Amino acid sequence: MKKIVVASDSFKGSLTSLQVADAIEAGIHLELPDVQVVKVPVADGGEGTMQTLVDALCGEYVTCQVYDPLMRTITSSYGIIHQNGENTAIIDMASASGITLISEKERDPFITTTYGTGQLIADAYSRGCRHFIVGVGGSATNDAGKGMLEALGCRFLDVNGKTLAPGGKSLNELSFIDISEMDKSLLDSEFTIICDVCNPLFGEQGAAYVFAPQKGASPAEIEILDNGLKRFAACVKTQFETDIAHLPGAGAAGGLGAAFIAFFNAVLKPGINTVLDVLCFENYLSGADLVITGEGKVDEQTLMGKVPQGILTLAQKYDIPVVILGGAVESRQVLTAAGFLGVFCIQSSAISLSEALKASITVENLKQTASQIVRLLSFHKF
Amino acid sequence: MKKIVVASDSFKGSLTSLQVADAIEAGIHLELPDVQVVKVPVADGGEGTMQTLVDALCGEYVTCQVYDPLMRTITSSYGIIHQNGENTAIIDMASASGITLISEKERDPFITTTYGTGQLIADAYSRGCRHFIVGVGGSATNDAGKGMLEALGCRFLDVNGKTLAPGGKSLNELSFIDISEMDKSLLDSEFTIICDVCNPLFGEQGAAYVFAPQKGASPAEIEILDNGLKRFAACVKTQFETDIAHLPGAGAAGGLGAAFIAFFNAVLKPGINTVLDVLCFENYLSGADLVITGEGKVDEQTLMGKVPQGILTLAQKYDIPVVILGGAVESRQVLTAAGFLGVFCIQSSAISLSEALKASITVENLKQTASQIVRLLSFHKF
Repeated sequence: MKKIVVASDSFKGSLTSLQVADAIEAGIHLELPDVQVVKVPVADGGEGTMQTLVDALCGEYVTCQVYDPLMRTITSSYGIIHQNGENTAIIDMASASGITLISEKERDPFITTTYGTGQLIADAYSRGCRHFIVGVGGSATNDAGKGMLEALGCRFLDVNGKTLAPGGKSLNELSFIDISEMDKSLLDSEFTIICDVCNPLFGEQGAAYVFAPQKGASPAEIEILDNGLKRFAACVKTQFETDIAHLPGAGAAGGLGAAFIAFFNAVLKPGINTVLDVLCFENYLSGADLVITGEGKVDEQTLMGKVPQGILTLAQKYDIPVVILGGAVESRQVLTAAGFLGVFCIQSSAISLSEALKASITVENLKQTASQIVRLLSFHKF
Repeated sequence: MKKIVVASDSFKGSLTSLQVADAIEAGIHLELPDVQVVKVPVADGGEGTMQTLVDALCGEYVTCQVYDPLMRTITSSYGIIHQNGENTAIIDMASASGITLISEKERDPFITTTYGTGQLIADAYSRGCRHFIVGVGGSATNDAGKGMLEALGCRFLDVNGKTLAPGGKSLNELSFIDISEMDKSLLDSEFTIICDVCNPLFGEQGAAYVFAPQKGASPAEIEILDNGLKRFAACVKTQFETDIAHLPGAGAAGGLGAAFIAFFNAVLKPGINTVLDVLCFENYLSGADLVITGEGKVDEQTLMGKVPQGILTLAQKYDIPVVILGGAVESRQVLTAAGFLGVFCIQSSAISLSEALKASITVENLKQTASQIVRLLSFHKF
């Protein structure tokens, strides 16, 4: 019996990843009722990824009180999944330190802190988690993970041995990082940081210059924040002989990426790769004859760490062909050169975008397109 | 070397049949540069068919003076093609007796005549044509071909032996059809009448009731016209023992179809079948591995005598798979059940109809879609 793996991103504004998979499955079965269809809902590390992972692996949600970016108490949550006899925490930093937790007027990376993210980690650690997957998108902060580290027992001191104020500005006064009170076994835990940006910690492409404006920093403040990050890197280098100055991804989430690399047993990893790893996606590929993937808009960006590209990479390892569907499709030659067997747009007529995004229409289009594709692939006499 | 035949209808409002074929060829060659692509521009017997045939077969155009539906002299034209050592006339009745030759106010099937069509036939006959292909769409007339027959020497007489007035009304006074002066060798010539309607000569589904309203007849006039057609059939039956009363297609072009059947060595044939015959389409299919066809809108109507259906029927005879492309696509299951291997819409995104119809966009969409289709068909490991 043939086996087809269906693993698509959501079609944003229209269908979830699972709904897309259901529609494609229906289309396959229209033509090939006996084919085994394995649906794997995936997401690319953006919004909703944590929930997708926790749900896909039947994890549980844990609620706890933490500080928001302005050190106000809020109720936050994270997930714990159970894999291979171990507990893995699935933490979205934005749920404790995200920009959506504060008003636009409150945005101020001079003072916003990642403290709450550290509290989530501490809570998960106290529940036995020794693996952590941390999503770092959507932060309100530019504190190089100082708050997060403090919540885990680290102390940031100025030249007089006085603890720095919360936020990114005070990093300019950093003189010493005291990790003596940090739990050794926590530092040795495995951290996977979901990171889809390559920005370094500081400089023109760094966290402050690229991301601080949208977090509320003025040009003058950006320079101060950038200097703070530079000072943080210098201290880390002096004290721990770890060079985080030029590390791609260190600038993620206002330098939170740098903190993980500097102090933890951490790797930065693109979202889709993390997701596919956690889902053990390669297991699904075993014995598969075809993979059908997709996303709302398929173009050259698709090859830059999006869901279909992660799936293609794994499928290529096993020489399994991958067809990609999109609500809109561009640059087909580039995509086929990258390895996709076929690139198809699902539209069935000229239609307005608002109409095309209707769930019922997208479902029908996915179904019909998938059915025609498996028809052609089943024909071997050409 | 693989061979692909590309034979599509035009994409109305966007591209001609040949332009469609060019775009599909470009798409095929993007992926399979070594495939032999044979392009056959086709049309379905509607507007433009005659020209397509004459051009495709390198025929010549003949210009001559004839009478229009109101017996005014106009310059008209028809084509002559040379096949197998014989001359075949390609005549569009509308170019002599068409509704577009008169103003809306002039429309009056009581008096409009097919005389000019007979003159075109006579001219072609005088130039040695013994095969005639006559398109009968778009007529202004309801005279049962009386005018056409008169131009060829036939006389329509009333009970007193007096010649009837031109047009459909006078058929009510028909008593005798005198064919003694008609050229026997013309009557024995081969006539193929391109006819895509099944309407009988008279009655509720007949020429007068169904088509005369758009030719300018009032309900009262329709009844008179219908009676005239009935009387014509009765005379034909009495005099020549030919029953045209219930013949499907006899009602085409205000009964012109009936006249051909009654007096000539004529067959009524759907447009696409005629076109494919004249083009010797089956010769192109020899050794073909695939046919790609298409039309602007692909739906259940496609199976009712449209270009792709005619092509499918012939390709099936040789077990050659046919893929169909459309600017809009519906009822894919019905179409695949009828035998199409694949049914694909060419759109590459949600887009307005006016945008989608732009030639450059249609060309690119056809090209890209064709390229993806041959990619899938070339893959044999599924």
